[in-house]
Amino acid sequence: MIAKSMESYVKGSSVIRAMFEEGARLAKIYGRENVYDFSLGNPNVAPPKELKDSVIDILESEEPTFVHGYMNNAGYEDVRNTIAQHLNKLHGTQFTDKNILMTVGAAGGLNVILKTLMDPGDQILVFAPYFGEYRSYAANYGAELVVVPPNLPTFQPDLKGLEQRITEKTKALILNSPNNPTGVVYSEETIKAIAAILNKKAQELGTDIYIIADEPYRELVYDGAVVPYLTKYYKNTVVGYSYSKSMSLPGERIGYLVLPDELADFENVVSAATTANRILGFVNAPSIMQLAVARCINASVDINIYNKNRETLYQGLSDLGYECTKPEGAFYLFMKSPLADETEFCQMAKEQRVLLVPGSSFACPGYVRLAYCVSYDTILGALPQMEKVMAQIKALPNQG
Amino acid sequence: MIAKSMESYVKGSSVIRAMFEEGARLAKIYGRENVYDFSLGNPNVAPPKELKDSVIDILESEEPTFVHGYMNNAGYEDVRNTIAQHLNKLHGTQFTDKNILMTVGAAGGLNVILKTLMDPGDQILVFAPYFGEYRSYAANYGAELVVVPPNLPTFQPDLKGLEQRITEKTKALILNSPNNPTGVVYSEETIKAIAAILNKKAQELGTDIYIIADEPYRELVYDGAVVPYLTKYYKNTVVGYSYSKSMSLPGERIGYLVLPDELADFENVVSAATTANRILGFVNAPSIMQLAVARCINASVDINIYNKNRETLYQGLSDLGYECTKPEGAFYLFMKSPLADETEFCQMAKEQRVLLVPGSSFACPGYVRLAYCVSYDTILGALPQMEKVMAQIKALPNQG
Repeated sequence: MIAKSMESYVKGSSVIRAMFEEGARLAKIYGRENVYDFSLGNPNVAPPKELKDSVIDILESEEPTFVHGYMNNAGYEDVRNTIAQHLNKLHGTQFTDKNILMTVGAAGGLNVILKTLMDPGDQILVFAPYFGEYRSYAANYGAELVVVPPNLPTFQPDLKGLEQRITEKTKALILNSPNNPTGVVYSEETIKAIAAILNKKAQELGTDIYIIADEPYRELVYDGAVVPYLTKYYKNTVVGYSYSKSMSLPGERIGYLVLPDELADFENVVSAATTANRILGFVNAPSIMQLAVARCINASVDINIYNKNRETLYQGLSDLGYECTKPEGAFYLFMKSPLADETEFCQMAKEQRVLLVPGSSFACPGYVRLAYCVSYDTILGALPQMEKVMAQIKALPNQG
Repeated sequence: MIAKSMESYVKGSSVIRAMFEEGARLAKIYGRENVYDFSLGNPNVAPPKELKDSVIDILESEEPTFVHGYMNNAGYEDVRNTIAQHLNKLHGTQFTDKNILMTVGAAGGLNVILKTLMDPGDQILVFAPYFGEYRSYAANYGAELVVVPPNLPTFQPDLKGLEQRITEKTKALILNSPNNPTGVVYSEETIKAIAAILNKKAQELGTDIYIIADEPYRELVYDGAVVPYLTKYYKNTVVGYSYSKSMSLPGERIGYLVLPDELADFENVVSAATTANRILGFVNAPSIMQLAVARCINASVDINIYNKNRETLYQGLSDLGYECTKPEGAFYLFMKSPLADETEFCQMAKEQRVLLVPGSSFACPGYVRLAYCVSYDTILGALPQMEKVMAQIKALPNQG
């Protein structure tokens, strides 16, 4: 009796549930601390202290019907203005409150902009590997996700592959840098090349093509990597942001969309997106968290913790003979599976109590993802287990 | 360049925006306190003090990565269990955490259950007058909203009208009691009659018909009115609840769905609804508010404030010669327009700085809605203005 469109999800989610249940089963047998779970992007680093202080101060000093009440569906004007000014200071942009729409996390923001832009049959381009939820978000609005295959082994975008796939139905390109699952950051040069391709094709086809920049990992970069702000390189850019990672608030569902003045059909996009926020059932981003993130706009989690994890995990796995892409951002490490079938490799790792996600979940089979937003002990404990897995693989009949 | 499906919304929302801008314009000229705005259901009664204490206590005593982190997409197990036990105590039901799905308010919950159940072309029945957003929620999933016309002047459901409109495409009936916009509460007898009709027709047609009970106003009842708990009367009932009104937290977006064991296709409905919560971009209900409402599960706003407003407004308008339905619940008063065209009446009221919503927004032209979740002074100030409006109407050529 459930909707036909939900049937495949229910089947899929029982596979994921089976994975979680297996994790829970292992934890019960061996103890939680002896299961090395790299499967989830749930930050283990505490939110900045300023966040807690801000929430308490808001509760103590502001009128409660204001703090917990409805506001414009786009969010509190002051909050949006604070964010606009913050972005302007960082990136030399010229945003005002009118360019900011507060959303229920980045996932809410992506659904809002897709509802705003997509007609059934429209195409959304994405570079593999990509966050698997994009498939669902596109399907929610009858849009088709068109995948540019992965560009091995660098995982930088395949520009020729992009150009070949642009049609008159192409309405948007989703860019996710720093990238989940690879940790790759797209360089300014790459962004300029992508913008040139989109401009050329849009002009040829007489269409508008939007870039939707999904940027929850913007602040999580290492070794001085720079993440270009895309609105400066391509006028039809919508940025989706979330405080889930930069402030470790994934459960609170707080983020925003940036809708620059330069967008094609700007006024209608803003009006439609604000309406979409309401009619999709979000109504508005959670009110007290809007006020709180604005009060500590310069605060951030301690990224050194992730960096230490990154260095140790990358070095450790490389030393064991695993082929890894060194992540420049986010908190994911993407690693080549030593077995052609990476689900088999994940199974072997699980038997050593190490939980990985198969690359096929990100349209990139033959690889696995490790989320290193875990305790340092988890990384130290996992490496000897991964050594055993490598030894087992080397002992297999058909392996080197 | 926005989606075709959004174009009519953008047109519609500019009408609403024009209304708000007019309100703001009047406030600027006459002062905010001299504009009597009954247009919005934004509670003016403060949340219970326990809510603030709970949030602060959670921040002071719990691990922040737990408070602000991801949990099961259905919500924290403990929170869901607390709510289940609370419902069981109040209603003699037998729910467990498995029957509760935490949602981003009632609007989020309705979208989740419609995504779960509706295939394009499915029909959803609703009694007019009804909350206009149901139209958008149905359209989000390609479902058709089939309206049972209003049953004047009591606004109790038209049972014959219901029965006549049930077809093999009928997948759900939305019931909203206490009702927005009428304030009417459906009696136990009415609920039993509706259940009997749905059972009979579902059996005849060989289908399952769900009741979706939209209950954000459940606790806001007056004069000892009783709101039957629908899962006890009809097995295929999903309840959507929100703390927006009972705890004055509309901006926080916190509510839940009740999915009873007795539902047709129960296991799949729960699995699909949990998945829908994720893929629609809600992911989960805001985490700290989940924890907070569970900690003060017995707290509620002071309903005496709304009751005083209700009595004064109802008595005052009736004394002036307006024909009102005395509300038994919620914080809305539905009133017959003294002019055949209620938008003309709204315009006259606005010229006296009283803002009303035309009944046509609720599929019930000829009436207007007043949201009395306002200060008592607003009510006292509005009555003399409404007296002037009545005098003007009586002086019109074609009026008594």
